[in-house]
Amino acid sequence: MKIAILGYGNIGRAAEQAINAAPDMELVGVFHHNDCLDCLQADAVLICTPTREVQKFAAILASRGICTVDSFDIHGQIWNLRSALNAVCQANKSVSIISAGWDPGTDSMVRALLMAMAPKGLTYTNFGPGRSMGHTVAAKAIQGVKNALSMTIPLGTGIHRRMVYIELEDGADFKTVEAAILADDYFAHDETHVIPVDSIDALNNVAHGVNLVRSGVSGETHNQRFEFNMEINNPALTGQVMVSCARAAVRMRERGEFGAKTMIELRPIDLLPGATEQLVKALV
Amino acid sequence: MKIAILGYGNIGRAAEQAINAAPDMELVGVFHHNDCLDCLQADAVLICTPTREVQKFAAILASRGICTVDSFDIHGQIWNLRSALNAVCQANKSVSIISAGWDPGTDSMVRALLMAMAPKGLTYTNFGPGRSMGHTVAAKAIQGVKNALSMTIPLGTGIHRRMVYIELEDGADFKTVEAAILADDYFAHDETHVIPVDSIDALNNVAHGVNLVRSGVSGETHNQRFEFNMEINNPALTGQVMVSCARAAVRMRERGEFGAKTMIELRPIDLLPGATEQLVKALV
Repeated sequence: MKIAILGYGNIGRAAEQAINAAPDMELVGVFHHNDCLDCLQADAVLICTPTREVQKFAAILASRGICTVDSFDIHGQIWNLRSALNAVCQANKSVSIISAGWDPGTDSMVRALLMAMAPKGLTYTNFGPGRSMGHTVAAKAIQGVKNALSMTIPLGTGIHRRMVYIELEDGADFKTVEAAILADDYFAHDETHVIPVDSIDALNNVAHGVNLVRSGVSGETHNQRFEFNMEINNPALTGQVMVSCARAAVRMRERGEFGAKTMIELRPIDLLPGATEQLVKALV
Repeated sequence: MKIAILGYGNIGRAAEQAINAAPDMELVGVFHHNDCLDCLQADAVLICTPTREVQKFAAILASRGICTVDSFDIHGQIWNLRSALNAVCQANKSVSIISAGWDPGTDSMVRALLMAMAPKGLTYTNFGPGRSMGHTVAAKAIQGVKNALSMTIPLGTGIHRRMVYIELEDGADFKTVEAAILADDYFAHDETHVIPVDSIDALNNVAHGVNLVRSGVSGETHNQRFEFNMEINNPALTGQVMVSCARAAVRMRERGEFGAKTMIELRPIDLLPGATEQLVKALV
């Protein structure tokens, strides 16, 4: 399979490594935002741009019959993205796999599986410890903040603490900045601690994780307990999941299963290299 | 969907409860082994017989265009069962989902997903604490044993201890029986402890569990860590998973995707009741 990468930040670099490690893939190019038409030689393109640029590039590529994979991560807008791309894919015989990361992505598959195992009950997804991009950007936007890092700390039952580390601008007053952060809508609803530091760069770490728990009911039997944990390098996992999804996309296009899909709509076996017999014997 | 149950032991009873709890299913009958042709009014039949009888009944039903689900659990023979039933299903436009329980079954899906997330590395599946059917039957077959229970205790890295509780026949010598159990091929390769008790019935408990761990490599990034844990009622979970797979089988038959499949070949979304839009919004 010929795979291209569009966008070359943390995720694009990690995806490049995952493609090079895949036995059935060839990297045919790493492209920047303005030369996306050069991706035409690829079976699939990994869209590693910022989330808000995903739809534009995916639609262009899908309209040319090229498979795409993105890690679009705004949960409330995923269905709209799927609807828009699904029409383009079906009209042009392509496959777009959207929101292909770990959450949304593989966590979504685990949540679906746990629902199938115990249909009634509660699932809690506890994130971290790890950096929240959205909260970090929000903290950086506060007046007097030179640089920031917002860590997400899981407290259980889907409740999170925000640990906000900040480098102050020269002359900025810590108490004023702290009050502005605590009043911001991103932080006002969670337990938040603001901590001044000399260097945000010295704290840089792409580790992240999840603790996903469900207690539910199978048939009439209560107290069925499930737990899924990860401690991972965030861009490395996201890039790897996107590469595995590119494999699924190309296979689905070969079978004529056109359209835009989320990961809960994929067969796990399609994510893996190798023949069905070998994979069934090794994994089932 | 009209669902029937063939075989009415622990699993059949649990499946009945799961069908009754499903919003989109109707139980159209519970049948015994000799009247399986009466299942013809069903969209799908759950084959809850002993594992060695699965293939015969699945082939009869699939040849009549009826979907089947089984929890065939002899790992080394799963590919042969799939091959035999796949031909019958494709010739008769039916779908058979095989080895649909938790291991093989949902654990298989988790193992596949972890391979897609970190392709290089080791996965360990640690079973229990819980009763091993195979080891219990082997212990019961030893001369001097009136009744037995073999518990599987996980020691990590896929190594297990066997705790074998036995009720002795009148006049049997414990040391002789213990030596025979320890020499049996089922027990000779694991740490095994034999414990005499007054009543096996007093120990009866269908609790089981798994601890599935992987440390692997995403792209070029090592030390990616994953863990999946369950503590569950064994027949209740197996019955529920079979019912969820019946839903997937009927949907696949409607789409013309005929054949025999293991769970790693299913889309998680097909296991769940409801429309795609609702499920994507709730789970992704």
